[in-house]
Amino acid sequence: MDLKQGDRIEDLQNGYCIIQNDKYFSFGTDAVLLSWFADIRRGEKVVDFCTGSGIIPILLAAKDTGSHITGIEIQEELFDLAQRSVKLNELDCVEILCGDIKRAKYYVGSSMDVVVVNPPYEKKDAGKHNENEYVNIAKREILCTLSDVVTAANKVLRTGGRLYMIYRTERLAELIVALNERKLEPKRIMMVAQRKGRAPNFVLFEARKGAKQGVEVLPTLYVYKKGNEYTDEVKRIYHMEEES
Amino acid sequence: MDLKQGDRIEDLQNGYCIIQNDKYFSFGTDAVLLSWFADIRRGEKVVDFCTGSGIIPILLAAKDTGSHITGIEIQEELFDLAQRSVKLNELDCVEILCGDIKRAKYYVGSSMDVVVVNPPYEKKDAGKHNENEYVNIAKREILCTLSDVVTAANKVLRTGGRLYMIYRTERLAELIVALNERKLEPKRIMMVAQRKGRAPNFVLFEARKGAKQGVEVLPTLYVYKKGNEYTDEVKRIYHMEEES
Repeated sequence: MDLKQGDRIEDLQNGYCIIQNDKYFSFGTDAVLLSWFADIRRGEKVVDFCTGSGIIPILLAAKDTGSHITGIEIQEELFDLAQRSVKLNELDCVEILCGDIKRAKYYVGSSMDVVVVNPPYEKKDAGKHNENEYVNIAKREILCTLSDVVTAANKVLRTGGRLYMIYRTERLAELIVALNERKLEPKRIMMVAQRKGRAPNFVLFEARKGAKQGVEVLPTLYVYKKGNEYTDEVKRIYHMEEES
Repeated sequence: MDLKQGDRIEDLQNGYCIIQNDKYFSFGTDAVLLSWFADIRRGEKVVDFCTGSGIIPILLAAKDTGSHITGIEIQEELFDLAQRSVKLNELDCVEILCGDIKRAKYYVGSSMDVVVVNPPYEKKDAGKHNENEYVNIAKREILCTLSDVVTAANKVLRTGGRLYMIYRTERLAELIVALNERKLEPKRIMMVAQRKGRAPNFVLFEARKGAKQGVEVLPTLYVYKKGNEYTDEVKRIYHMEEES
């Protein structure tokens, strides 16, 4: 097994592991929640945009749906990390490509069943930039904007295909308008709050290409109980093998 | 005081009362939540579309903001009921008009600070029609659609003016798109669920005309604790005098 300087192997508690490296950035709760929320069916063709260190393809593969998952990552060092994690787990159903999601249609065609994406949340110039450019690219709209993500999703999805996404609640309205412009109809929404009584900061989304109007807003998900203990629901999500 | 056949006077627990009549329909929790959510400032000019029996103007007047509130109701019998309730409460700051909100601009001009609306939630032909045509008109898009409501709000509001609305979560995406098309930017959203763990069925909305993007999603509001007891928050809402 090839490990590079600074690499560490993290156990995902579901029979799989992932290589992380502090030189880049580590996956967060958002990636875990999105992988749980994405309702992948047996044998579907899935593409994960902005795949980073490959956390989402690995967590989706762990669901054992017999689907084929392609992860696309634009930063070469992260692509390399993701590819090595896939190899480490011997996941034949996962393929990582180094490329720009704006060209996704050329890589994966236009008949995908599912797109998953944990995109950059922040506008290019919002707030204070991080000194680490890997972090900036992952978190800010430097190499891809919301419009790029939604346009690319529309191009690769078959009619009836689904987009799963996690986003900041602050940009909820913008997201819905962007989806609507590309005929991606929001079908399921789940607000995610840190704890009861707190404002939801994330929103999980399922949109379907060409579907009719009408959205199901699911019960709000809370991450923590009192203190820093996860809620029972989030505990189940973090140990996916208990779910089945 | 004029009471007509079937009229009964309901105490609103806030120093005011309202005439209800089972021949029409009674106000629900949605009207109470919307009146609470609407953040009216001192001396603002407010219009309530689809005012029904006048519940929202009366609850807004009870907040004692010194605002002037016009309620518009298209059904003559309900207009009459609302007007008598206003008189009963001696509310000089409230005026009820009988008319169509599509003509609201002719009644109230185009410099309103606030529009409040608890509109029909259902599409014209959705589900089973009620035998009572008053109920059908209040609940279904028979005399006014979502598009009519949002268009009329846009016409009467000044730039920077606010729209407060309650709606079914099922139509959340449709609502956001409709607002966006009229430059009414969603600024605050609150999901309302019957109880914890249940899917939110209502959404409270504040949109601002010509505002920049960015929405605050507030903590989810739960109506009931275990059993049929209201949560502390909803108890406070129902007895508004305790809030200040």
